Amino acid sequence: MTYCVAMRLDEGLVFASDTRTNAGFDHIATFRKMHLFEKLGERSLVLLSAGNLATSQSVVKLLERRAGTNEPNILNAESMFEAAELVGQTMREVIQRDNPDGKISHVDFSCSLVLGGQIQGDGHRLFNIYPEGNFIEATEETPYFQIGESKYGKPILDRVVTYDTPLDRAYQSALISFDSTMKSNLSVGMPLDIAIFRKGTLQPSLMHRVEENCEYFRTLRQQWHQGIQDLFTGLTPPPMAL
Amino acid sequence: MTYCVAMRLDEGLVFASDTRTNAGFDHIATFRKMHLFEKLGERSLVLLSAGNLATSQSVVKLLERRAGTNEPNILNAESMFEAAELVGQTMREVIQRDNPDGKISHVDFSCSLVLGGQIQGDGHRLFNIYPEGNFIEATEETPYFQIGESKYGKPILDRVVTYDTPLDRAYQSALISFDSTMKSNLSVGMPLDIAIFRKGTLQPSLMHRVEENCEYFRTLRQQWHQGIQDLFTGLTPPPMAL
Repeated sequence: MTYCVAMRLDEGLVFASDTRTNAGFDHIATFRKMHLFEKLGERSLVLLSAGNLATSQSVVKLLERRAGTNEPNILNAESMFEAAELVGQTMREVIQRDNPDGKISHVDFSCSLVLGGQIQGDGHRLFNIYPEGNFIEATEETPYFQIGESKYGKPILDRVVTYDTPLDRAYQSALISFDSTMKSNLSVGMPLDIAIFRKGTLQPSLMHRVEENCEYFRTLRQQWHQGIQDLFTGLTPPPMAL
Repeated sequence: MTYCVAMRLDEGLVFASDTRTNAGFDHIATFRKMHLFEKLGERSLVLLSAGNLATSQSVVKLLERRAGTNEPNILNAESMFEAAELVGQTMREVIQRDNPDGKISHVDFSCSLVLGGQIQGDGHRLFNIYPEGNFIEATEETPYFQIGESKYGKPILDRVVTYDTPLDRAYQSALISFDSTMKSNLSVGMPLDIAIFRKGTLQPSLMHRVEENCEYFRTLRQQWHQGIQDLFTGLTPPPMAL
């Protein structure tokens, strides 16, 4: 399983992904699900992936391989929209290669992608790309996308994230969202990859890995857990005797 | 969709269910998903249902119809375990009636049930009954079961509910769990049905419906939402500039 979340906010973009993959409970591995495509001073894009690892790896490798060529690719696309079209097209191509005409029905070849970033001359934008290769774009009303195991970590985002949320707060909300998810689903696991872009900059202002022993994440998890207990303890008791 | 949660705690049993059913977004109705089977002074059982409404209604009706007869039924079962067997058997019977030999594959006839309560001479017990009619029982380590749309409301339960949680606290945690679920999934909706049994009693100490305008639930939802915001605001800021 996988959990990834990405937000497009007034101040910029926030991306977070876990690194656990599993093919059965006894076949667990660590894989990067966050991929950076950059052309210094001109563009910087992040791709997050969830779903079939063979499909998403092929998509990333094909995008990387073509990035050096003259054919249309992620490093010469003129807008984020065009880049999203290209990624969607690449996904369709890989799924068609591995499962021509959808003949194999007992394997799920699909994957979900989130693509965000900024290309010079275009705003900071964020897209959710479906297994069929079509996609939707984040708006001020719907400023975040989740892919993979999204439900456990959604309530906290819905309560604290809006388009106006500052980047540091958004970063914290992503970490709390991962904490809730990892408590409930063992197949989402540490370390976490984080990327943050400030609006108008063409490179990440933060790109780092949160490891198991990260002091700050540990502090945050403890504060949150204790805070929830205290908040719960302080609720008005029921009006009737039970 | 549906969300139901039931807890078996040291002090007793707590049951909660929503009442919304939908067959498509434009076909929404209110149905009771909590059913009480009682023999005054001797037994009191609650059945919660999620899944195919035709299946769960038939199961409940058959259980009710047989309750007055001499054949083995939910009002003469000698233990909660025997009652769970009977409910599982009734579910298998209904699914077999409606979909003989599983020939129809485009309709999901399955439903999930939770059965709990107390029969004189037996402890307060709680069972999760699967669509196949087999079942598991709650233990001190795993004191609660959820059926239906369970993920959004699970993190809060995992943080505050243990076997030692008092009934009034457990009632509050169920309401908060519903609040989180209803914020994220429109197909889980008010009003909510609640039943609470104190251990050793053979009738509910509380059986009521939480309506949309319930003052206490509204207070709790506000306190929780505001409390989460305050808790979030008070978290230690990230150690790096973003």
